[in-house]
Amino acid sequence: MRINVVNGPNLGRLGKRQPEVYGATTHDDLIELCVAAGKDLGVEVIVRQGDHEGDLLGWIHDAADAGEPVILNAGGLTHTSVVLRDACAELTAGLVEVHISNVHAREEFRHHSYLSPIATGVIVGLGVAAYPLAIRFLAERG
Amino acid sequence: MRINVVNGPNLGRLGKRQPEVYGATTHDDLIELCVAAGKDLGVEVIVRQGDHEGDLLGWIHDAADAGEPVILNAGGLTHTSVVLRDACAELTAGLVEVHISNVHAREEFRHHSYLSPIATGVIVGLGVAAYPLAIRFLAERG
Amino acid sequence: MRINVVNGPNLGRLGKRQPEVYGATTHDDLIELCVAAGKDLGVEVIVRQGDHEGDLLGWIHDAADAGEPVILNAGGLTHTSVVLRDACAELTAGLVEVHISNVHAREEFRHHSYLSPIATGVIVGLGVAAYPLAIRFLAERG
Amino acid sequence: MRINVVNGPNLGRLGKRQPEVYGATTHDDLIELCVAAGKDLGVEVIVRQGDHEGDLLGWIHDAADAGEPVILNAGGLTHTSVVLRDACAELTAGLVEVHISNVHAREEFRHHSYLSPIATGVIVGLGVAAYPLAIRFLAERG
Amino acid sequence: MRINVVNGPNLGRLGKRQPEVYGATTHDDLIELCVAAGKDLGVEVIVRQGDHEGDLLGWIHDAADAGEPVILNAGGLTHTSVVLRDACAELTAGLVEVHISNVHAREEFRHHSYLSPIATGVIVGLGVAAYPLAIRFLAERG
Amino acid sequence: MRINVVNGPNLGRLGKRQPEVYGATTHDDLIELCVAAGKDLGVEVIVRQGDHEGDLLGWIHDAADAGEPVILNAGGLTHTSVVLRDACAELTAGLVEVHISNVHAREEFRHHSYLSPIATGVIVGLGVAAYPLAIRFLAERG
Amino acid sequence: MRINVVNGPNLGRLGKRQPEVYGATTHDDLIELCVAAGKDLGVEVIVRQGDHEGDLLGWIHDAADAGEPVILNAGGLTHTSVVLRDACAELTAGLVEVHISNVHAREEFRHHSYLSPIATGVIVGLGVAAYPLAIRFLAERG
Amino acid sequence: MRINVVNGPNLGRLGKRQPEVYGATTHDDLIELCVAAGKDLGVEVIVRQGDHEGDLLGWIHDAADAGEPVILNAGGLTHTSVVLRDACAELTAGLVEVHISNVHAREEFRHHSYLSPIATGVIVGLGVAAYPLAIRFLAERG
Amino acid sequence: MRINVVNGPNLGRLGKRQPEVYGATTHDDLIELCVAAGKDLGVEVIVRQGDHEGDLLGWIHDAADAGEPVILNAGGLTHTSVVLRDACAELTAGLVEVHISNVHAREEFRHHSYLSPIATGVIVGLGVAAYPLAIRFLAERG
Amino acid sequence: MRINVVNGPNLGRLGKRQPEVYGATTHDDLIELCVAAGKDLGVEVIVRQGDHEGDLLGWIHDAADAGEPVILNAGGLTHTSVVLRDACAELTAGLVEVHISNVHAREEFRHHSYLSPIATGVIVGLGVAAYPLAIRFLAERG
Amino acid sequence: MRINVVNGPNLGRLGKRQPEVYGATTHDDLIELCVAAGKDLGVEVIVRQGDHEGDLLGWIHDAADAGEPVILNAGGLTHTSVVLRDACAELTAGLVEVHISNVHAREEFRHHSYLSPIATGVIVGLGVAAYPLAIRFLAERG
Amino acid sequence: MRINVVNGPNLGRLGKRQPEVYGATTHDDLIELCVAAGKDLGVEVIVRQGDHEGDLLGWIHDAADAGEPVILNAGGLTHTSVVLRDACAELTAGLVEVHISNVHAREEFRHHSYLSPIATGVIVGLGVAAYPLAIRFLAERG
Repeated sequence: MRINVVNGPNLGRLGKRQPEVYGATTHDDLIELCVAAGKDLGVEVIVRQGDHEGDLLGWIHDAADAGEPVILNAGGLTHTSVVLRDACAELTAGLVEVHISNVHAREEFRHHSYLSPIATGVIVGLGVAAYPLAIRFLAERG
Repeated sequence: MRINVVNGPNLGRLGKRQPEVYGATTHDDLIELCVAAGKDLGVEVIVRQGDHEGDLLGWIHDAADAGEPVILNAGGLTHTSVVLRDACAELTAGLVEVHISNVHAREEFRHHSYLSPIATGVIVGLGVAAYPLAIRFLAERG
Repeated sequence: MRINVVNGPNLGRLGKRQPEVYGATTHDDLIELCVAAGKDLGVEVIVRQGDHEGDLLGWIHDAADAGEPVILNAGGLTHTSVVLRDACAELTAGLVEVHISNVHAREEFRHHSYLSPIATGVIVGLGVAAYPLAIRFLAERG
Repeated sequence: MRINVVNGPNLGRLGKRQPEVYGATTHDDLIELCVAAGKDLGVEVIVRQGDHEGDLLGWIHDAADAGEPVILNAGGLTHTSVVLRDACAELTAGLVEVHISNVHAREEFRHHSYLSPIATGVIVGLGVAAYPLAIRFLAERG
Repeated sequence: MRINVVNGPNLGRLGKRQPEVYGATTHDDLIELCVAAGKDLGVEVIVRQGDHEGDLLGWIHDAADAGEPVILNAGGLTHTSVVLRDACAELTAGLVEVHISNVHAREEFRHHSYLSPIATGVIVGLGVAAYPLAIRFLAERG
Repeated sequence: MRINVVNGPNLGRLGKRQPEVYGATTHDDLIELCVAAGKDLGVEVIVRQGDHEGDLLGWIHDAADAGEPVILNAGGLTHTSVVLRDACAELTAGLVEVHISNVHAREEFRHHSYLSPIATGVIVGLGVAAYPLAIRFLAERG
Repeated sequence: MRINVVNGPNLGRLGKRQPEVYGATTHDDLIELCVAAGKDLGVEVIVRQGDHEGDLLGWIHDAADAGEPVILNAGGLTHTSVVLRDACAELTAGLVEVHISNVHAREEFRHHSYLSPIATGVIVGLGVAAYPLAIRFLAERG
Repeated sequence: MRINVVNGPNLGRLGKRQPEVYGATTHDDLIELCVAAGKDLGVEVIVRQGDHEGDLLGWIHDAADAGEPVILNAGGLTHTSVVLRDACAELTAGLVEVHISNVHAREEFRHHSYLSPIATGVIVGLGVAAYPLAIRFLAERG
Repeated sequence: MRINVVNGPNLGRLGKRQPEVYGATTHDDLIELCVAAGKDLGVEVIVRQGDHEGDLLGWIHDAADAGEPVILNAGGLTHTSVVLRDACAELTAGLVEVHISNVHAREEFRHHSYLSPIATGVIVGLGVAAYPLAIRFLAERG
Repeated sequence: MRINVVNGPNLGRLGKRQPEVYGATTHDDLIELCVAAGKDLGVEVIVRQGDHEGDLLGWIHDAADAGEPVILNAGGLTHTSVVLRDACAELTAGLVEVHISNVHAREEFRHHSYLSPIATGVIVGLGVAAYPLAIRFLAERG
Repeated sequence: MRINVVNGPNLGRLGKRQPEVYGATTHDDLIELCVAAGKDLGVEVIVRQGDHEGDLLGWIHDAADAGEPVILNAGGLTHTSVVLRDACAELTAGLVEVHISNVHAREEFRHHSYLSPIATGVIVGLGVAAYPLAIRFLAERG
Repeated sequence: MRINVVNGPNLGRLGKRQPEVYGATTHDDLIELCVAAGKDLGVEVIVRQGDHEGDLLGWIHDAADAGEPVILNAGGLTHTSVVLRDACAELTAGLVEVHISNVHAREEFRHHSYLSPIATGVIVGLGVAAYPLAIRFLAERG
């Protein structure tokens, strides 16, 4: 079993960008955290980050073809991208949408997600701890 | 450390009500599941369910006074109850809002929550597995 | 066959409250009217009224468990209660929503009902005569 | 006493059109059902159906002039026709609006009726059984 | 010069329908009033009333072909009929939209007119006196 | 009998401002036109124009005290001024709202008037000819 | 195989009405064009136009009974007629909605169609060329 | 004369809950303050607080039956409870709605009150001082 | 200590204007009432009324410079004036917004106030009695 | 003459993605279909697909510079991309917007297109058959 | 060449009012700054400030008659005044709308301007530096 | 000091695209203009243009890391891109949003900008002259 973690635009800035909102963890730390969580649970975890929507689409298409689950933090694309939703709708092995900050406590336009209605589930506001929780969920449901 | 799980109206019907949406787990199973998860992590977990909004308010007030965290599945009150939000706003030790089903994939009126903006975080659509994940999150952040 | 009539908050005030809107019939008269209508058609009719939402939920849960139909006048909760809707969604033997006054000719907020989309049908504006008509409908469809 | 049943556009298709929604009763069956229900209660019932809005207006005008009550199922015109509402506003002997299907459980645009605010009452979702119930209501209030 | 007065659905009811809103003048009185007003100003006036939208369309088409102005009181169709607007958009010799009552002081849905944006002008709330004023306006601008 | 014509902000610009919309008539021409129309009908007409809302209020208050009718073209204040509406609501001898251009064919924000619901009637889009028509209407109804 | 072309209100005006929007082709030319296109493809094409909504309903009902496909240009009724939608919903052999002009580049109220959600497909803005394209589509899918 | 002060859900938390918003006065202090204010003005004041909506309804029903005025701070129910409004609509001796904080300076959902349209008046943002002011108002109008 | 009472447009009409809404008290009576209330409490009260928004702004600016509290009844400007809000935002010694009638029970456009979010508090619907209550509030908080 | 077919994000998935919605045709099949259709009509057809919005922009810019027509299926970008609209607005040789599925029968957010108002025309819901129809339209109008 | 700077209500308060938002520059400083900027560029600059909308209208009318450009900071009237827009629409030599603070980062109601659509351009959020930039723009385009 | 000018999608088309809206200046001219303006003021100016959103993100990230100010014309992404806003929110040395045309005088969807609330300021409608003005502003504030 392989779990794909896909992080969207600006998430490469983790640790630098608004640390009071997103915490001090960098994206490299996050990769380590996810891989370690996978190892504990006996699953392979691969983490990718991209600022180009087209690149995210490709990674989702690959996961769809491979029948692998995805943990997706699409950043600001969450609220605006229909094409990302369309790509995700092809996933059959589970999709957990993740947001590090509590988007419901921020601007109005962050309250709506194009992804949630076609996701298996959503974890919001639990910081980077959401990633290992999502990995655990996917690993345990097999 | 003690974690309070508060389940709102109709959640006593778990297992009976729309099993295709909410699963076969009964509320008694859920209590067991939560208590066991707590035991594994060395925290006390207490689970209560009520159909009267006023009873839920009382349990939240008690947790606020005791400085204990709350995991709250308010059921349909999530979308309509300002008084529940007001009570929760007094909590200082963390509030994780939980929904068993993916509310974003259901009727429009289930997409808005009065609780999310004042919660620490939200877990949606991961079934009853959300409860142990939330307990883990609260236990680990201490 | 048993038909449950459930009347919500303020309906105990029938006869006292705005008689120009709701008529002079008291809730005791209404009980009598319903029971008599049932007797004519050979069905048992039980009428209950409550001002606590939690009590209404309990009665609906019981009817769901017993597989009995319900005639529900939820009063003002019609327009605001998602939990009542969720409870009613479990009914399998028919739900007739009743309003004594013509809610569509009153304030805007009375035009929307959370119950109608999951009811078998709705009778509005025919006064207390709606109760025996609903009993007749449920009795005849068996 | 004479009661006018007026059925609007497409209702001549009863029995043919979406039987899973509207049932197997044809419009001829419906006429028989209504006339029989009237006979039982000692009132004359006349049933007319038309696809031209202008024809419906004429029948409503006649009922207004004769001081007779109307049972109106305006079909899709319910949601769009101000002129039908204006004609019905002249009725003084009662207007019962009828819908065979539960319009509140269908498309959003079927939730609003121009007729309801000026009707005596409304019966929704009880199938063709709504017609004899409406006839009974009008006959009994005399 | 010939001026066409076109009155829509329910206007044949003038004098009978809500006299406190529309006054005691019948449609026959109105015809007389218009014809007389025309005679005073040396113009021919022809008045027609119809309950079928299709008939109104025909009269507007004829006026468009003849290059004649129209005074149109479309009644409730004012607020709902795009096809009437489309027909009127072909008129080149002037269109005065008339409403006997003050539609802006009535229900919300009467505040919008599909006709006003393509009319030369509109007269509202001046009772049947609006017709001779409109005739005068059209006669004087030639 | 005395009829007050009150013209609001920017109407002193008539003849200069967008002549393709408002025509070539100046405000002085308009005064003459109104006074002459009054003389023909045996009524006194007084025309005033002001750019200060407070001045308009004073003139309306005076007309209310004197029991005189008002013809009001409030210009852009039509769409924004609640205080002008409140002042006009005291008038008992008739209020005709006038707009030279067809406001319904212009920007969305010109489609709503705070004055129309409390006016006797409204004349729109008939150019400066609206003033003598309004004077005639008020003179004839006495 | 027979294909029914149904043209709604005002389409008899083709060639006369706003030629800069709708082109110079008359409705007679259009009939010829359609029949010829059918002949080329070996299908019978029948073209009808009506200004009465009730007449259109009848033609749709007939096509539904005969199991024949329909090409429908409902003109302004597209945006306002629920009854036309209800009639079309009975068609089983395909419905192609056609608009000669690009309705999406015109007034806001022309952007919504009651018909599109229940049509097989829609062709917009390609002028009268849309008719032979629709005929070709229906003929080829058989 | 007796004045009923009814405080809704969470108001028992006064002094504990967000003291920067609601002040340091506890609910017991508030009772004292109200009773004292009544004594000064020669009226009896009774203060009750409840977290169950159904209990509030009962107290309002009693005041309605006794013909006594009510000062109501419904807390978060202000914005969501139609049944409370319906109960209050029966009061004949005056209803003063009170909010300790300035609800208009807080979240959008606190700007609308179901109670205000049927209240005699409303006092907002003046802190607990609003209670004695309301008592004075009711006592003086007798 | 000096308290400024500022009354906006049309409030000079008190006593004349809609006495069934605003009562029989004239503006001169109101001045007397306020000054007397101040004398009782040992504070100076100055009452001004103006129909020009610009004059109100000047009085508010003066109070801001002098560090004095203001009681403001802005009449219809309440609902439309951003500049009045901006001026009031400079006040540091308290602002009590007052409305004689219950604006929440009147037209929709009277439900929103630009002033409330920046006011200390609001008193609505208590008639002219609101002025002495507001004076008392300001005098007591010192 | 050269016709450019531009397919946007996810359209490379044709045949794999939701075949019940989009059919079994792959993107390679589609290329063949389009090229063949062009050959029949004597026009060159070039088909490109891209998941990066920036690549689509480049192809549109090239077509604009070359004065060539475009057939564009922008997939989910249709509903969200202003920059695609801006690029297309430069096309002078015709733009046909194409959607394989009937977007009007799907989610609300698929009903609005940024492209339609600046397209020549739109074909919706006719499956991949829309491409040869669009090629035919462009080839025939030359 | 003469450039008119027109500052609206409350701008005379510059330096006093919310210095954290508007800066410490007084209106007298601003006059000096503008005149000096003009002198550098060889243009006359005249600066006026008024709290009465009617006075602003007069200054705009004068600039329109003189064919001179205007730099307008209308303060809160920006969001509410149609009459100011109407006056500005007559300007032919350029209108630059200026806001000292970033209105888009403040309350929702400050995001819409009646002036922007008829202005040449807008400068927002650059503090008082916007005035010399606007003068430079107008001076350079001649 | 270095100032980054970032131009988004389609801005490479300057001079070609709608010259009546955007002027005849090409993007190369614009680069020259900006660099020259910088040289005059003693600051380095670097101008980049890209059609890929991901490339713009990268340039913004670099400026954020370098602590340099940005002048951003995001073209159509202004209205749709949350990720661009998120990237810009990291800038600490100033962000001036620029639009060549007056977006407020164009389509409704161009009136809202995701960037404005987090920008220092905005310049709209002043043509390419906005770039040197923005450079001057940033250079002078240092």
